[in-house]
Amino acid sequence: MPDLDPRRVVDELKELRELTGDKDGAQRVAFTEKWREARRWMTEKLREIPGAEVERDEAGNLWATLRGASERSVLLGGHIDSVPNGGWLDGSLNTLAGIEVLRNLSGAELPVTVRLVDWADEEGARFGRSLLGSAACSGALKEEEVRGLKDRDGVSLPDALGENGLDLDRMKESNKQLENAAAYLELHIEQGPVLERMDLPLGVVLGTFGVERHAVRFTGQHAHSGSTPMDVRRDAFLAAAKSALAFRDDAAGRDDVRATNGFVNVSPAIVTAFNGVCEMSLDQRALDADVLAEMLRVAKESSERLAAEEGCEVGWERIWDIEPRPFDERLIQLAEEAVTEIAGESHRLPSGPLHDAAEMAPLMPTVMLFVKSLCGLSHTKEEDTPERDIEMSVRALHRLTEKTMELVSKG
Amino acid sequence: MPDLDPRRVVDELKELRELTGDKDGAQRVAFTEKWREARRWMTEKLREIPGAEVERDEAGNLWATLRGASERSVLLGGHIDSVPNGGWLDGSLNTLAGIEVLRNLSGAELPVTVRLVDWADEEGARFGRSLLGSAACSGALKEEEVRGLKDRDGVSLPDALGENGLDLDRMKESNKQLENAAAYLELHIEQGPVLERMDLPLGVVLGTFGVERHAVRFTGQHAHSGSTPMDVRRDAFLAAAKSALAFRDDAAGRDDVRATNGFVNVSPAIVTAFNGVCEMSLDQRALDADVLAEMLRVAKESSERLAAEEGCEVGWERIWDIEPRPFDERLIQLAEEAVTEIAGESHRLPSGPLHDAAEMAPLMPTVMLFVKSLCGLSHTKEEDTPERDIEMSVRALHRLTEKTMELVSKG
Repeated sequence: MPDLDPRRVVDELKELRELTGDKDGAQRVAFTEKWREARRWMTEKLREIPGAEVERDEAGNLWATLRGASERSVLLGGHIDSVPNGGWLDGSLNTLAGIEVLRNLSGAELPVTVRLVDWADEEGARFGRSLLGSAACSGALKEEEVRGLKDRDGVSLPDALGENGLDLDRMKESNKQLENAAAYLELHIEQGPVLERMDLPLGVVLGTFGVERHAVRFTGQHAHSGSTPMDVRRDAFLAAAKSALAFRDDAAGRDDVRATNGFVNVSPAIVTAFNGVCEMSLDQRALDADVLAEMLRVAKESSERLAAEEGCEVGWERIWDIEPRPFDERLIQLAEEAVTEIAGESHRLPSGPLHDAAEMAPLMPTVMLFVKSLCGLSHTKEEDTPERDIEMSVRALHRLTEKTMELVSKG
Repeated sequence: MPDLDPRRVVDELKELRELTGDKDGAQRVAFTEKWREARRWMTEKLREIPGAEVERDEAGNLWATLRGASERSVLLGGHIDSVPNGGWLDGSLNTLAGIEVLRNLSGAELPVTVRLVDWADEEGARFGRSLLGSAACSGALKEEEVRGLKDRDGVSLPDALGENGLDLDRMKESNKQLENAAAYLELHIEQGPVLERMDLPLGVVLGTFGVERHAVRFTGQHAHSGSTPMDVRRDAFLAAAKSALAFRDDAAGRDDVRATNGFVNVSPAIVTAFNGVCEMSLDQRALDADVLAEMLRVAKESSERLAAEEGCEVGWERIWDIEPRPFDERLIQLAEEAVTEIAGESHRLPSGPLHDAAEMAPLMPTVMLFVKSLCGLSHTKEEDTPERDIEMSVRALHRLTEKTMELVSKG
């Protein structure tokens, strides 16, 4: 059993960056030539691992399997695709750390099967549908919702899949890969500031947030900024401003929730009138479904009260929602043990962004490890993590894999 | 001396509407064929007034003069131009009421001269420079600031002037028209809701507001709506929201000031991030220059404090400003007497929008009368005023003209 070599992961991350990045960052957008090049490079690495069986499923996910005494399997997941002008770690760290773990386990007598999966198109950068490969595999994908998607050049998703030897209508056949899956583990950069601010290299993820995303539209009546006295105005922007502050105040001081206004569109949006319409997005997140529902209820109530204070009305339209995907409590404990053994201290935190792990969590015990991001940056070439912390994250994933194999082997 | 016939003004307003409007409203945009048609129609009416001398000055302003014993003259002003899809009263009421007053005065022995001026291009609807004719006449026009203006079809202002027999560089020669001017009177629809809400037909205008118009730019740091905890955010939109409410609260409950946020632009303006930048316009108005300066000082101070509360910075950039143009106290009193005699009750109020009177106020005693607008609407075909109130406004302008003639004749 070869020694675990976390330094090699750092070196291979740099090798991959050289191969598939440019001065603007990583360019491994799924279903493009640079992504296929990354996949070829990765497949070569996998084939060099003694005993590893390498295959691609119907959704384009790449699997490497080390068979153990039992067919029950521990899955390690990652994605080598990136956004355009992306970072060197988002997705690829997970994948290359997983390769290193497989290398270490290869040749040993494994009590259970261990598999690495490189999900296809986690980012959704080209067609706007993230988690494509893992959603196909989990069965959550709705083909009709993505069939009409086109990239900026007008190429349709089905055509791009075809260029990669894939058929949209057969992608869900990849679900059979999960037949004996007993646990799912994923390492990822945090993409947020929490661990860095706590000066911790590693943390354990409690789950991915549920999201309620709405367009909130305030309607008053615009009129002239000079001729309309202050006390007769029905200013929709002021109603929205009050509500935005109320939404934030309801979430303030809490680690387990978020409330964010993104787009803000006012009308008529001219210097000589106050606004009769203001529409803004509200993105609410929580780890607990009941908490999320209560936040939404409170926000609707506040917005109605505050709109009325300004002589306005308010309407809500849901843009998107997803339920929280809490991770497995036993695996969270194992992950905490692994992180503490490697780094001396651990911290539990929710994941703000979605990950492929969110697709696996409803199907099997799932957990994620986070490694510190510098300045909370990702999806940019400035994305970074100290190499020492990257190495620790590889060790922690390895330790967690061993612990999980043991747990699964005991049934 | 023919009887004053206010009903004729209503009838002529309707005649003008038929002639130069369509189903979308008035179409008398200055320097276009419809405007010239309105001017020809109006010139014919003026030429029918016995003793009226009609001439056009170098700025395209149309003058009709009834000479009195003294050359000192009382000016009545209006503008027959409209915005596209405009209302039937904005500008033309003043002009046609003035014609009716001249008709009444014609043939009488006048102690002073009385002149009606139809200003060219009050609205600035085609080239974006309002008060063009009156600013040329007052001497305030800066030729270099308007020489490059173009309309939507790419026609330059100097070329459009040329088509109307005018030369930009000679427009200010019209200033000689003001040589013996002793007072300026203007009737206008209110374009606001104040008189209607007080159930009064007529009011006396205290002056036009001074304006401080700024772009206020808040800068924080945008980041992901999921991965960034609430307590580390530097959300520029929230800083702007707090400031907008503070700006309004400082002006609330006061008749003599306004504070208005118009455009609001956030960045990156996407559902999955809070905003690192928010720029919004603030338009502050006051009748008193010191009050206006103090409002601006308070607003800047508030915005700095509130931006800091949200971890943001704020910068101010002036877009435009103009000093208040208070009207003449003696003429305000005369106007109040005239309105009270006609309508039983009067009300003093500031003018939100600018008017040609603002160009005259620094040069001679000036006052305006407002007549009620329904729903505060103007610059739209829905603009309206009850015919009974229009008739009262003609009577009030006539009464005020008589009183002013008397005042001027006494020196």
